[in-house]
Amino acid sequence: MGEIDNDIDVDIESQWLSDDDLETLRGKIPIVYVEAVPVRLDELGRVTHVGLLRRAMADGTISLAIVSGRVLWGESLREALMRNLDKDLGPAAFPRLPASPTPFTVAEYMPDPIQTGFHDPRQHAVSLAYVVPIQGHCEPARSALEFSWVETHEAGGLAVSAEMTGGQDRIVRRALAHVGRLP
Amino acid sequence: MGEIDNDIDVDIESQWLSDDDLETLRGKIPIVYVEAVPVRLDELGRVTHVGLLRRAMADGTISLAIVSGRVLWGESLREALMRNLDKDLGPAAFPRLPASPTPFTVAEYMPDPIQTGFHDPRQHAVSLAYVVPIQGHCEPARSALEFSWVETHEAGGLAVSAEMTGGQDRIVRRALAHVGRLP
Amino acid sequence: MGEIDNDIDVDIESQWLSDDDLETLRGKIPIVYVEAVPVRLDELGRVTHVGLLRRAMADGTISLAIVSGRVLWGESLREALMRNLDKDLGPAAFPRLPASPTPFTVAEYMPDPIQTGFHDPRQHAVSLAYVVPIQGHCEPARSALEFSWVETHEAGGLAVSAEMTGGQDRIVRRALAHVGRLP
Amino acid sequence: MGEIDNDIDVDIESQWLSDDDLETLRGKIPIVYVEAVPVRLDELGRVTHVGLLRRAMADGTISLAIVSGRVLWGESLREALMRNLDKDLGPAAFPRLPASPTPFTVAEYMPDPIQTGFHDPRQHAVSLAYVVPIQGHCEPARSALEFSWVETHEAGGLAVSAEMTGGQDRIVRRALAHVGRLP
Repeated sequence: MGEIDNDIDVDIESQWLSDDDLETLRGKIPIVYVEAVPVRLDELGRVTHVGLLRRAMADGTISLAIVSGRVLWGESLREALMRNLDKDLGPAAFPRLPASPTPFTVAEYMPDPIQTGFHDPRQHAVSLAYVVPIQGHCEPARSALEFSWVETHEAGGLAVSAEMTGGQDRIVRRALAHVGRLP
Repeated sequence: MGEIDNDIDVDIESQWLSDDDLETLRGKIPIVYVEAVPVRLDELGRVTHVGLLRRAMADGTISLAIVSGRVLWGESLREALMRNLDKDLGPAAFPRLPASPTPFTVAEYMPDPIQTGFHDPRQHAVSLAYVVPIQGHCEPARSALEFSWVETHEAGGLAVSAEMTGGQDRIVRRALAHVGRLP
Repeated sequence: MGEIDNDIDVDIESQWLSDDDLETLRGKIPIVYVEAVPVRLDELGRVTHVGLLRRAMADGTISLAIVSGRVLWGESLREALMRNLDKDLGPAAFPRLPASPTPFTVAEYMPDPIQTGFHDPRQHAVSLAYVVPIQGHCEPARSALEFSWVETHEAGGLAVSAEMTGGQDRIVRRALAHVGRLP
Repeated sequence: MGEIDNDIDVDIESQWLSDDDLETLRGKIPIVYVEAVPVRLDELGRVTHVGLLRRAMADGTISLAIVSGRVLWGESLREALMRNLDKDLGPAAFPRLPASPTPFTVAEYMPDPIQTGFHDPRQHAVSLAYVVPIQGHCEPARSALEFSWVETHEAGGLAVSAEMTGGQDRIVRRALAHVGRLP
């Protein structure tokens, strides 16, 4: 889970917390995250494609990934979702946040890779995951190298899973199941 | 629940079923319905308004109502939702069907008003209810006399409930709870 | 989907509907079904096993299957779930129906095997699917030949899927995703 | 939200975090909470009663409350739920944790009482809320003075709401809506 923090993040987040502080907190308390699975819908609302980023991850790999980021102090979940979608997909993505605040699943990332099957070497993170339809055009920003739309049957398959880390492939498959598109 | 069937309905549905046939079926088998609570969202996806129709209902009243209609043989739930949204809100409503096929609640309408609290004098209907964001402009069509947007705090209140029949006010309040906007 | 109707069914259901009547209805109107994925939970509520029946199916195969049955006129979804669980798993299963009436998914079975990926040669059925923890002991009843508990990682795998028909393997995988146990 | 921390809490949690540390963290980062609405079910799974504690709250009032507590570092959501249920309802409650890890709603408690409608003077907390059926006998423990079962129509009413603080009455009403029992 999670991309390497870069300059932009530090600028935004340092209003609240220094890097050292965050490092310390990560060993003491679970960190709240939001994650978004970007999707394209057809005219009847069916998911046709899943959007995936290619980026440098916290575990040192270059992997496929979904949108993911920390919730800041005083920030609502919706604000955190919108901020992270903007940072990862660019200003022309026009994401449509869901009407319900309930995530379709919750992932518990742990430093121990065995405990839950979700792994983040840096921290214990509790991540609320949402399916987010995208109306506009995505341009990979921040640390992302690439963005691409993948058809649903491919997004849930082995080839894509093999390129994801930390358990994010399981979030993609849970999202596909939630929207009735898991093969 | 349910508006009085009118000419347009009969035209569309008579490909499958005569009025007499439908009458007979209604006493023998539960009928599948879809219902939609039309909503307006702000830029962060929060529901700000609920859309309500004013129409002649099956119980003989003129009441506030949500979008509601039968699923036809061979028709998917998404097609039924879209067809009934079009019929009730007009062709410029541009409803955005949800990515997930799972309804936010299920209502069981019975001829006996006591059994479930959802009442339809004509039939036993099992209704799958969805929250549907509306992007366009609604024009009441079919048997509807009027359409209006009501603020969330008002939509869940007693004055609106008193003008709804069959238990549809409970569907509106469940929808508001689902999207985190029940007062 | 759906086992071959047998004597017990006819006895119970003939209060409402003759076999001939039902046959006619099936070509005219979608039929309401409930389906249950029986599960075993550990002490923290995690699903450890999925219960599968082996039975003669409507498509002529002997296949693995979940609990499935029609909702009768005037019967609530909960009553239909409990009646079908009792019929399929026996009187000592002690199923714990979920507190929420919302299914975890909805499956649309069609005579056309392509349309939705859920296939029932007899009918268009709209099926509300629930995860149902089982506290007691299951004894296959009715037309079922066998009942067995399968570990979650196996239940979502290819070998089990290959033995299921009509798309029920997809309901099992959606159930596993819903409870956070899809591999 | 949240009871006053007492000795038992400190003993358990001090393995991870001192009181001073926690105080500091609360101003820097959102804190992960779990909340449980205890319920009694009838034989068909319908919620008949909601369980409410009476306790000294963080805002200085003696109020009705649901089960609520922080998730500790390295602790899973299920473990946190079970630990807080045990602490609040005693060892004979036998709570049945839900099969799905998805909460029925998420509440965002803020020091600013206006921002979200959920208020905690001490912190920004993101709380995952679950409906938890109780099989056993509840004995108020920890800082709770009393525990009582309240019928669903009463639990969603004004008299009970007036005795709850921080917005927990809204969580109760969302829970009732989720299980189809909101009046």
